[in-house]
Amino acid sequence: MEQRVSLITLGVADVNRARRFYEELGWRGQQMQETVFFQAGGLALVLWSRAKLAEDSGIPDAGTPGAFGGIVLAHNVRSTAEVDALVGAAERAGANVTRAPATTFYGGYAGAFTDPDGHTWEIAHNPGFALAEDGSLVLPDFGAAGPE
Amino acid sequence: MEQRVSLITLGVADVNRARRFYEELGWRGQQMQETVFFQAGGLALVLWSRAKLAEDSGIPDAGTPGAFGGIVLAHNVRSTAEVDALVGAAERAGANVTRAPATTFYGGYAGAFTDPDGHTWEIAHNPGFALAEDGSLVLPDFGAAGPE
Repeated sequence: MEQRVSLITLGVADVNRARRFYEELGWRGQQMQETVFFQAGGLALVLWSRAKLAEDSGIPDAGTPGAFGGIVLAHNVRSTAEVDALVGAAERAGANVTRAPATTFYGGYAGAFTDPDGHTWEIAHNPGFALAEDGSLVLPDFGAAGPE
Repeated sequence: MEQRVSLITLGVADVNRARRFYEELGWRGQQMQETVFFQAGGLALVLWSRAKLAEDSGIPDAGTPGAFGGIVLAHNVRSTAEVDALVGAAERAGANVTRAPATTFYGGYAGAFTDPDGHTWEIAHNPGFALAEDGSLVLPDFGAAGPE
């Protein structure tokens, strides 16, 4: 596992409210459907529905100790095989695999696990998000139409 | 506010257990007292006591909805004046300031707030952690003795 974080996704109740808050602080991003992506150095800070984020991670958002913490750290890799390998390695290291690797709604391939303290990681291969040589993620220009 | 994240701190129950988990996945970091720092691209992923992290952020770790989520995103700046300015701007944008800017135990100056969805940010000036021209954070070599 390379030592890097590709995306930090904040689960939010209202994407537009959250976007306005970060925009008031000077952040500028791109919105694709109900998701906002801010380039932040070599990673992206993402705003997405908390309920969808929890569901997508395979974790109940129960508001109880041990339940979903509301943030997902994504580690993007260059192939589906790497997703399988890394999720397997995490499981052997004691992670709880909350979502077995599978194709995703955006045409990628990803799995999710929680670390021993319940922090959620997604291991993803997203053909739409290229990784630089050094592993940093640079968001594409979604354009007017934008990828689906 | 520049568009970047300097540190992602994961609150953990047992720093050694958490460190072993990430080391099994191939991560290599530096430990300073009870805190582990992993360089990850232009930021640091940090493991620290969840209880101390909550207390340091001024947020009760009650395990109830709206309570501490267990993760803090830090945005480091180059001066104490910037800390004051940014925490003030966040408050005007609707943030809940959970810790007014003040000197920190490590000789820095920091304040903390939660965004409209309860995600915690720390705005910090840490003279021990230099920021590159582009805002990325490169951990110092803590050495055998390490800074206090």
